[in-house]
Amino acid sequence: MLNSPECSFNLSLNDCTFKIKRDDLLPDFMGGNKVRKNSYILNSLPCLPDVIITNGGAESNHARVCALMAARLGIKCHLVLHGEEDKSDYLHGNKFFIESTNTEINYVNSHEIARTIEIAEKKYKSRDLDVFVIPGGGHSLDGARAYIAAVDELAEEPDYIIFPSGTGATHAGLLAGVKKKNWKTQVIGISIARQAERGVAAIDELYAPLCAELNIQHNVDDVIFLDEFTFGGYAKYNAELIKFIRELTSQTGVPFDPVYSGKALYGLTQLLEQSKIPAKSKVLFWHTGGLLNLQSARKVYDTNI
Amino acid sequence: MLNSPECSFNLSLNDCTFKIKRDDLLPDFMGGNKVRKNSYILNSLPCLPDVIITNGGAESNHARVCALMAARLGIKCHLVLHGEEDKSDYLHGNKFFIESTNTEINYVNSHEIARTIEIAEKKYKSRDLDVFVIPGGGHSLDGARAYIAAVDELAEEPDYIIFPSGTGATHAGLLAGVKKKNWKTQVIGISIARQAERGVAAIDELYAPLCAELNIQHNVDDVIFLDEFTFGGYAKYNAELIKFIRELTSQTGVPFDPVYSGKALYGLTQLLEQSKIPAKSKVLFWHTGGLLNLQSARKVYDTNI
Repeated sequence: MLNSPECSFNLSLNDCTFKIKRDDLLPDFMGGNKVRKNSYILNSLPCLPDVIITNGGAESNHARVCALMAARLGIKCHLVLHGEEDKSDYLHGNKFFIESTNTEINYVNSHEIARTIEIAEKKYKSRDLDVFVIPGGGHSLDGARAYIAAVDELAEEPDYIIFPSGTGATHAGLLAGVKKKNWKTQVIGISIARQAERGVAAIDELYAPLCAELNIQHNVDDVIFLDEFTFGGYAKYNAELIKFIRELTSQTGVPFDPVYSGKALYGLTQLLEQSKIPAKSKVLFWHTGGLLNLQSARKVYDTNI
Repeated sequence: MLNSPECSFNLSLNDCTFKIKRDDLLPDFMGGNKVRKNSYILNSLPCLPDVIITNGGAESNHARVCALMAARLGIKCHLVLHGEEDKSDYLHGNKFFIESTNTEINYVNSHEIARTIEIAEKKYKSRDLDVFVIPGGGHSLDGARAYIAAVDELAEEPDYIIFPSGTGATHAGLLAGVKKKNWKTQVIGISIARQAERGVAAIDELYAPLCAELNIQHNVDDVIFLDEFTFGGYAKYNAELIKFIRELTSQTGVPFDPVYSGKALYGLTQLLEQSKIPAKSKVLFWHTGGLLNLQSARKVYDTNI
């Protein structure tokens, strides 16, 4: 049930052909790349734990998926969330879905995450419950392996795969998946937050062992992680990005958000404009989700647009 | 590209087997039944008009689909919307997507809809433009024919098809589609707003001519339209319905909304509880969309829950 549709994508840019891989339409748990990762992570365990604990931002897609997945499996979920809790009375965003479950939530400051997870873990273990801690964002080898498998769903070898690159497992998996198939595809992650040095290190932390496991020649230079389109950091955006999202949604009929897919698509159009992706290329945009981030985002007012 | 996934659906009720047809995951224009209807309607025209005009509520899914469809086709869209314009500064709901296009919008009172459409039509015709007026909600024979075709996507004959029934084209099409296949399936529409008398009349206005066209024996008693689960009318809901939606989303991992899918699913669970759908039945819930309605809905506070 994990296949997502691969559709034609009517960008009219630089005489390239475009396709879009719609992981935002994965049927379970409101879709997105976190569905693939967390399904793979839980399926890889020898047996289902009684409790999963994980962490993320207050509007985290990863947290939403973990909460809903645990609810459907009938196990407990404990979330350690940082950042500002949304106090809106709209029934929107990831918050609505997280709070639809019986998930236990601690809102903490960033520096308290590790300790809070530790305390929760001890609490459940003292009750003789099996606990499994999923790394924030599903950043683990199994999270990345989900994307090695996902590459197998593609109908043909693209020249470029472009996608939003965050904590690194999606990126490491896509790159390893492409190498495993002996494709020449360039895998280009558009950073949605991190600067290149930290971003590449996090990706390579997973990519290097995956190469060893798959007998692929490892070269860190294959990790292409562009940090020019972050719009100032995680979940930051300006009126220019929102204008861009509106235009591209209108042109293509596909939703984009200002946290993930919108930034990556913006990066793609810039690469095309700068002819860093040559004419006649076969380009695949991998949509990793984010509609709920759009739905809980607010207008911004820039004076310089 | 119009197929939608048919998934297993883990309701554990009354020893029935459940499937869910996910029209909310139709890839184009944010999905839902209005995508099927309006695609069919436009594809049935001998040639593409220069302008489409249609009407709907301020948070209308139909209006969103028409606006995005017109944008992608490069034709003009003119919307006549009634009800209160959402003034929130969240980038949410159908409004965000409608306003992402160059659609012209008139906000009017209900009694001014027909006249406003007429004036707009005249304006475009005087400029020598081809105009096509799509009935509100896609309520037309072609809108219904889209759902005759949709029935062909089903993997097997269910005993029951349950879905949110609104203006009538989805209902007329599903019923005609089932009859055309000589299936014994009971097609049960859960009214999301209308009382039975008006609802059945609107459905039969399309169902009767479809029967004639398809050589099906017409019997208005085949139109099963249950008006006990409207929660007071269109887009009305209470805390009980929101609680129900949260529980069922948590149980199934599928999103439901308080305008369409949530009411229909509530109706289904009531029918099961009352044993009006017998044990061991094969039940298909047809999800016709509505996530954006959820995302722009507000909390309600009932004192009696």
